[in-house]
Amino acid sequence: MTKRPLILISNDDGVDAQGIQVLTKLMQRLGDVIVVAPNGPRSAASCSISPIDNINITLVKEELGLKVWRCTGTPTDCVKLALDGLLDRRPDLMVSGINHGDNASVSVHYSGTVGAALEACMKNVPAIAFSLQTKNHQCDFRPYEDVILKTVRYVLQNGLPDDVLLNVNFPEVPQLKGTKVCRLGRGRWMKEMMQVGENEYRLTGYFQNLEPDSEDTDYWALDHGFASITPIQLDTTAHALLETLKKEIEGDCNT
Amino acid sequence: MTKRPLILISNDDGVDAQGIQVLTKLMQRLGDVIVVAPNGPRSAASCSISPIDNINITLVKEELGLKVWRCTGTPTDCVKLALDGLLDRRPDLMVSGINHGDNASVSVHYSGTVGAALEACMKNVPAIAFSLQTKNHQCDFRPYEDVILKTVRYVLQNGLPDDVLLNVNFPEVPQLKGTKVCRLGRGRWMKEMMQVGENEYRLTGYFQNLEPDSEDTDYWALDHGFASITPIQLDTTAHALLETLKKEIEGDCNT
Repeated sequence: MTKRPLILISNDDGVDAQGIQVLTKLMQRLGDVIVVAPNGPRSAASCSISPIDNINITLVKEELGLKVWRCTGTPTDCVKLALDGLLDRRPDLMVSGINHGDNASVSVHYSGTVGAALEACMKNVPAIAFSLQTKNHQCDFRPYEDVILKTVRYVLQNGLPDDVLLNVNFPEVPQLKGTKVCRLGRGRWMKEMMQVGENEYRLTGYFQNLEPDSEDTDYWALDHGFASITPIQLDTTAHALLETLKKEIEGDCNT
Repeated sequence: MTKRPLILISNDDGVDAQGIQVLTKLMQRLGDVIVVAPNGPRSAASCSISPIDNINITLVKEELGLKVWRCTGTPTDCVKLALDGLLDRRPDLMVSGINHGDNASVSVHYSGTVGAALEACMKNVPAIAFSLQTKNHQCDFRPYEDVILKTVRYVLQNGLPDDVLLNVNFPEVPQLKGTKVCRLGRGRWMKEMMQVGENEYRLTGYFQNLEPDSEDTDYWALDHGFASITPIQLDTTAHALLETLKKEIEGDCNT
């Protein structure tokens, strides 16, 4: 009998969030599952880690083919801990989410959901981040199950190129119009600091899509009822600029 | 008389770190300076932000051409707050650091120093992150002053392309051999979780350079006594994969 694949799950909404529970049940259909997730919300944790405080974990569930750990660290800490402390074999796949809130365009940089997937990717574990464009803690995830299962089966069968992960976003709709592979759209968060006291501020703001008409972007897909799948790469070097900068800055600095 | 450029400074080691104080003094030679930096260490804060807690700030210094704010948030919060609350005009440049510890290769993903620069870049403010490969809290930064000033002058004069920042790293040496424009090297952190109790871990580990002989990488430059300058881009889409994935996954998901 072929060994069932081992699937590692984390998120940034915490181990008790509905999204990770739905994802866990789905993944149990496909393999053995280990969940290592934060003990509470870590939204917008990005790739942050905990260099100062010790990290504590508690085993909260253990049954055939499933182990669930609750962790005091960040999403990235959870993945490091799983790969470097808790797992006795290398996972075949890491999935992150399902995040409550989309992680499209520049939001990939703030996202703990994407951060966790990026950490797995750095360690050569194929990784997928799933996010739903919603502000609700309780949602109907059934419209997205089919795409999640198909994406995961594709990656389990084919793997992913080195240093690349998949970032999957869903619009909150009763039925998807379809799925689009697309690039990150250009956009930015605006008016993000609300003053709430003399020297006190609260994070707020709205997202401004800088190219709402570009059909090849993730936000276009979401705005039009499609799931978006974007391959994200680890290497952020702006390769196209290297030659120009070599001539200009390197020359300046070396004289 | 031409208006002096306005330069925004932040870091992830906190407002009291030596690196940001050295950088502040250097920038005062070139323009008016506003510092908005965390009230203590935020190493490895990445692009994390504070969606739950309010953010408090205190003005700790105000003199001609210089204002220094201490902030309870992350490096990214500091930049958002500066651009969206504290500044009455748009800065001409944002500089981050000088970080105590390098931020080369994959460490750019964990770095709060780079995170702060990325935030400025998202808001179209030209940004440079500076980091020194050291473990010391007190260092001699004089060997790097010339490259810092030259890089900053270059960017003040020429700007940077949209959605690109510069990531500058220095080796800890009495005298630089020179400066190299280079790509991020491939590498990864290893053995990162040390067990310190039954269910308690501490972050540790060492960096493994996966291409130590590649002369076009940042770590090669640092290992050989050169400053490294790497252009980093906001867009992390793996563009080269879009067509293949469109054929393969999009087909799967839409049937």
